[in-house]
Amino acid sequence: MKINILGSSGSILNQFAAEIRDIQFQSDSQRFRLNLERMGQIFAYEISKTLDYHAREVVTPFGTAEIPVLKNPPVLATIMRAGLPIHKGLMNYYDRAGSAFISAYRKVYKDGHFKIHINYVSCPDINGEVLILSDAVLATGYSMELCYRELLTYGNPVHTHIVTALSSTEGIDHLRKNLDTRQLTFWTCAVDDEMTAQAFLVPGLGDAGDLAFGKKGD
Amino acid sequence: MKINILGSSGSILNQFAAEIRDIQFQSDSQRFRLNLERMGQIFAYEISKTLDYHAREVVTPFGTAEIPVLKNPPVLATIMRAGLPIHKGLMNYYDRAGSAFISAYRKVYKDGHFKIHINYVSCPDINGEVLILSDAVLATGYSMELCYRELLTYGNPVHTHIVTALSSTEGIDHLRKNLDTRQLTFWTCAVDDEMTAQAFLVPGLGDAGDLAFGKKGD
Amino acid sequence: MKINILGSSGSILNQFAAEIRDIQFQSDSQRFRLNLERMGQIFAYEISKTLDYHAREVVTPFGTAEIPVLKNPPVLATIMRAGLPIHKGLMNYYDRAGSAFISAYRKVYKDGHFKIHINYVSCPDINGEVLILSDAVLATGYSMELCYRELLTYGNPVHTHIVTALSSTEGIDHLRKNLDTRQLTFWTCAVDDEMTAQAFLVPGLGDAGDLAFGKKGD
Amino acid sequence: MKINILGSSGSILNQFAAEIRDIQFQSDSQRFRLNLERMGQIFAYEISKTLDYHAREVVTPFGTAEIPVLKNPPVLATIMRAGLPIHKGLMNYYDRAGSAFISAYRKVYKDGHFKIHINYVSCPDINGEVLILSDAVLATGYSMELCYRELLTYGNPVHTHIVTALSSTEGIDHLRKNLDTRQLTFWTCAVDDEMTAQAFLVPGLGDAGDLAFGKKGD
Repeated sequence: MKINILGSSGSILNQFAAEIRDIQFQSDSQRFRLNLERMGQIFAYEISKTLDYHAREVVTPFGTAEIPVLKNPPVLATIMRAGLPIHKGLMNYYDRAGSAFISAYRKVYKDGHFKIHINYVSCPDINGEVLILSDAVLATGYSMELCYRELLTYGNPVHTHIVTALSSTEGIDHLRKNLDTRQLTFWTCAVDDEMTAQAFLVPGLGDAGDLAFGKKGD
Repeated sequence: MKINILGSSGSILNQFAAEIRDIQFQSDSQRFRLNLERMGQIFAYEISKTLDYHAREVVTPFGTAEIPVLKNPPVLATIMRAGLPIHKGLMNYYDRAGSAFISAYRKVYKDGHFKIHINYVSCPDINGEVLILSDAVLATGYSMELCYRELLTYGNPVHTHIVTALSSTEGIDHLRKNLDTRQLTFWTCAVDDEMTAQAFLVPGLGDAGDLAFGKKGD
Repeated sequence: MKINILGSSGSILNQFAAEIRDIQFQSDSQRFRLNLERMGQIFAYEISKTLDYHAREVVTPFGTAEIPVLKNPPVLATIMRAGLPIHKGLMNYYDRAGSAFISAYRKVYKDGHFKIHINYVSCPDINGEVLILSDAVLATGYSMELCYRELLTYGNPVHTHIVTALSSTEGIDHLRKNLDTRQLTFWTCAVDDEMTAQAFLVPGLGDAGDLAFGKKGD
Repeated sequence: MKINILGSSGSILNQFAAEIRDIQFQSDSQRFRLNLERMGQIFAYEISKTLDYHAREVVTPFGTAEIPVLKNPPVLATIMRAGLPIHKGLMNYYDRAGSAFISAYRKVYKDGHFKIHINYVSCPDINGEVLILSDAVLATGYSMELCYRELLTYGNPVHTHIVTALSSTEGIDHLRKNLDTRQLTFWTCAVDDEMTAQAFLVPGLGDAGDLAFGKKGD
């Protein structure tokens, strides 16, 4: 699995990452979402460098230009609800891409163990397509793995790009050990080494879904 | 149930409505989403005229201004997936509002009858809050009714505004007959009188979810 | 001259107005511009209620809808540089409108008196069009008057809407006394009664151009 | 002068470039501006890779992260009016950057020769700053040269990035011959070899200002 940690070299992406992590900025949920959206745009652009293009003849007011344009738009899948802002950023650059939405939840059993279930999925046919699967954060990697496997029941993508703003070392290891990594490229801004017992990244940013959309009720 | 049909008087809202209905424009899914987003902004603004304000003292570089600002932001609930663009428009104006996402699906039984089930819900505590529940289109009204009932398990909103870009006469009747309408205000741009057997509005606009996000796979 | 003070009744517009006035928020120039842009959208929508519409037949996937759409898009003129964010908001709703840009500066003479000159104008033919002329703030009204007169050399608009986020009583009086007010409608969010000796509104918001784009150099 | 032609390798930038050139798309001025805005964002990101960063300690809900953030935001100058959409894209990524606006016009004399004059400039102090000077298109290079020289009267930038969506070979040569190229980096999507007698690029895209904002009146 090819891993691209875009924040390891200096760019404005780190500015946005700094703001989504920063408790000073986190009270402004509009800005939190905006920063994830901008990060999504940058991931969209960097991923676009790996896609296939073919020449199209474009008629201009003064002649004809031959320009390499996307052969096929990717399909943009995201994990509810925290993935929505980064997904909006991806959509901002891939106008004609179809979208998939998927949700997994953790069911905790009496003896304390838990299992992750898919409760919602809406996905186009992804057979032969490039899939870009996004979430705000990669923590344990269990949800990402399960969502990815569920999406594969909608067809075999030629390649899948997994995108998260922040990631954990453990989550990346999990994906590497449990998925067919020849089919995958992983994109993130930064990798945090630690996690809390509740699977929040350390230093991380807290709960991305709550920060973007408010705390859930009971 | 108070009903506000904003498109019945002339405004730029009808321009956006014309474009989301128009098959000539529908091939441009970026614009389809943009138009729903702009309609969501206009609904956000018109609904805001009904909310409660209190005076806040604002310190400016040259003095102090007393300005009426929102007492409480509303909670913005939307129905997946077609409601997302209009919900984005609502979020664009209510920066500090929490969001709820909900999904219902139609389970068809062997004898042909169907039942609508909720499969996904993420909702903050809405007790004592103003709720704005949005979807792209109101067709039969069954999903809207069920989603609204499900959300009520997260608290009792002081008032609920239901917002859809387009609506059917039948759907509005359904809500009127089946919900406690003293708690509700209904907002839409236009009301279509007919529906197809598959519950698409006529003339309507087709399948709003597909137009925004692509056809679902099997 | 019809005067519409939109902030005199409660709406989300006042929230945006509170933020552009508030020194706490003013350090965030991105948000300052965003708020002016959102105010511009709301003015665009309210002004659109006064424009002329004609029925257009729109072919949908399931039929034909007759929808009132704009007869003619307005022309959107703005005064440099402070008017740009509110102008962006107006453009966001009038996709097909042409734009005019104009700049005036104050030339101060040795004896202390000054004269306002136009140094930049780019304007389409506005003959027979509806003109929407925007600036962030109306202070003395001298620049607005001069810019308006200059634009009239590009044709006779059927009507002109003058839009500023904040206005002074004195500025409105100036327009009323010096312009042909039958041709004008004035839109603002709030009217401040006082001005400083340097013609800043009190309480006002300070220098809108500096807040949006940074202090000018010498 | 370092020259970066970003469209020479495949990326989504070329999709946006194809659309701004394409007469089929050019009737949609909203989209024309959107595409220039998106190109501006991509230039902003690529240029950001060349800027200087310093580590900032960011306090998160679960710890402290050290993140490289911009030492100094650049100053964003643009040439009126065609540069505005690309400048908006640059502003979208550099929240805290100051902006400069400048305009030059061509004065044609009776004997047919012409001279370019600056008629409008609003510029912060740029001494010691990184300057990003944008326009939609670089044609002859005369306006760009003159605007750049004018801006230098507001201070000595440590480096200047000149950004245009499309450029001509002749225009680039002009800059190379007439400016101190050690201080300059040039960014564009594509370089066209030919120009019409009226200095429009061939194949080019036509008149970027007219396409974004409508034809000027007389």
